[in-house]
Amino acid sequence: MNITFKCLECGLSNFIKLMNEFNMPEDIQKRAMKDFLLFLSHLNYSDSPPVISKYYHEEIKKLLNNKDPYYDKKRFYNQKILSEYDNFRSLINKTNNSVRATFMLTLAGNIIDFGPNQNFNIEETLHNALKETLYIDHYNKLINDIYRSSLILYITDNAGEIVFDKMFIEKILELNMVSRDKIVAVTRGGPVINDATIEDAQDVGLTEIVKVIDTGDCAPGIILENTSEEFREYFHTADLIISKGQGNYETLHSTNNKNIYFLLIAKCPLIADILKVPHKSFVCMKKGEGK
Amino acid sequence: MNITFKCLECGLSNFIKLMNEFNMPEDIQKRAMKDFLLFLSHLNYSDSPPVISKYYHEEIKKLLNNKDPYYDKKRFYNQKILSEYDNFRSLINKTNNSVRATFMLTLAGNIIDFGPNQNFNIEETLHNALKETLYIDHYNKLINDIYRSSLILYITDNAGEIVFDKMFIEKILELNMVSRDKIVAVTRGGPVINDATIEDAQDVGLTEIVKVIDTGDCAPGIILENTSEEFREYFHTADLIISKGQGNYETLHSTNNKNIYFLLIAKCPLIADILKVPHKSFVCMKKGEGK
Repeated sequence: MNITFKCLECGLSNFIKLMNEFNMPEDIQKRAMKDFLLFLSHLNYSDSPPVISKYYHEEIKKLLNNKDPYYDKKRFYNQKILSEYDNFRSLINKTNNSVRATFMLTLAGNIIDFGPNQNFNIEETLHNALKETLYIDHYNKLINDIYRSSLILYITDNAGEIVFDKMFIEKILELNMVSRDKIVAVTRGGPVINDATIEDAQDVGLTEIVKVIDTGDCAPGIILENTSEEFREYFHTADLIISKGQGNYETLHSTNNKNIYFLLIAKCPLIADILKVPHKSFVCMKKGEGK
Repeated sequence: MNITFKCLECGLSNFIKLMNEFNMPEDIQKRAMKDFLLFLSHLNYSDSPPVISKYYHEEIKKLLNNKDPYYDKKRFYNQKILSEYDNFRSLINKTNNSVRATFMLTLAGNIIDFGPNQNFNIEETLHNALKETLYIDHYNKLINDIYRSSLILYITDNAGEIVFDKMFIEKILELNMVSRDKIVAVTRGGPVINDATIEDAQDVGLTEIVKVIDTGDCAPGIILENTSEEFREYFHTADLIISKGQGNYETLHSTNNKNIYFLLIAKCPLIADILKVPHKSFVCMKKGEGK
């Protein structure tokens, strides 16, 4: 997905909001704003929007002299969801399709997002998750593809949400839909917003059930040319990619790789428009196949 | 009033909106955006917000190769209000304070604005004008000052609205509150948005009742250092300045000149905050004297 003028507006607003939230002194804000505007003036519009958010989150980290300003929040959401793990599991096991129920919770978990303009109510979202509509529903195709794959790359998105990703992976392993050695999970290569890193995968025990690698880059998405060789090798050899969230959609939408499923809540009005779904819809879409 | 980050956000959104409204080709928009972002990156935050709107309106005019994109709209609003001139006059004359009633209509006329984020309902605003509250009410002081002044500079704002300015000036002349040679009206020095120029003053007959000069500059406000010598001479010798609208407030708010009355509708949330009045309030405020 290419950068639009709307992404500039959104990036500018969010950068201002973050500088205020982190209480940065006025002169530092003005200098940082100058650099950000210069960066925006040299943008390549054929890049994807996470190029912008990567820039200003890196900037915020530098200004704060803090490599991970969301560290505590990420731990909080991991523990919050983990503390209800058994409740969620028993809720799921009471349904007549426990795979789909787990899948819907995994999708609902995508609401935990500290990106631009996010006001989320996690309790409400999770409470309603099992009865949500999938506005683009390639779920059955996905399940068929999971059965037939020889290597699945599962790209996670946010901390907290990653607990549900673990739950979904556990469920498909439990039902022998796929064997443990055929699935590799992916986190970001470094902290950015509340995106999950290897530490979150360890925190929630995902590393105990499957191999987990990282992208080698801390963009809030997959900017392929910046990722590690290891990641790219998996990316190109996997015959099924499960991609969570908007950042991964924005960056992977235009790659050549065909067998990608995008699982996301359409939290940005622009993306909802592109996908032709209502704002905040639940989506499970196979790349290249529309509604 | 100094430029804030909110003004950058507002300027960026409005520039994008205008380029779309005027159907500019994508490559031209991208080049113009690059220049605008470079301009913003070099901003001096001690300037006032109209420096930003002046820039992008000049840019839009250049890109359209049209010195006055709002020409027809300005004529339309002048004629629309002129066509009801007699109705407004008789409405006013039925009230028990025809000066105040004219004044309230003059203020209400400030709603006719094609600046950022303006969705105005002129009929509704005019209909309610006489019973509106003045959230900052230095009206009585203003009337006293009009009686005592030896030179009044009346700085107009928008086309259409200028008909009501004429009506107010006519009313104070009619009641001999001031003599004709003691009042000079001011328009912009060139077209910018729907701000009134000398042509509008002629269009509505203001030039027939008092002397009208222009600022010599086409900023949507008074950036003193860019104005003509004639304007500055009047500005410094006048002992009472009546300033209509936000653009004039934003630029004149921090000048040394003391006896300025700001008459405006607080259409920008930031200005409403600064003035400590609700958004869209009617305000008549003597400079340096708060609520």
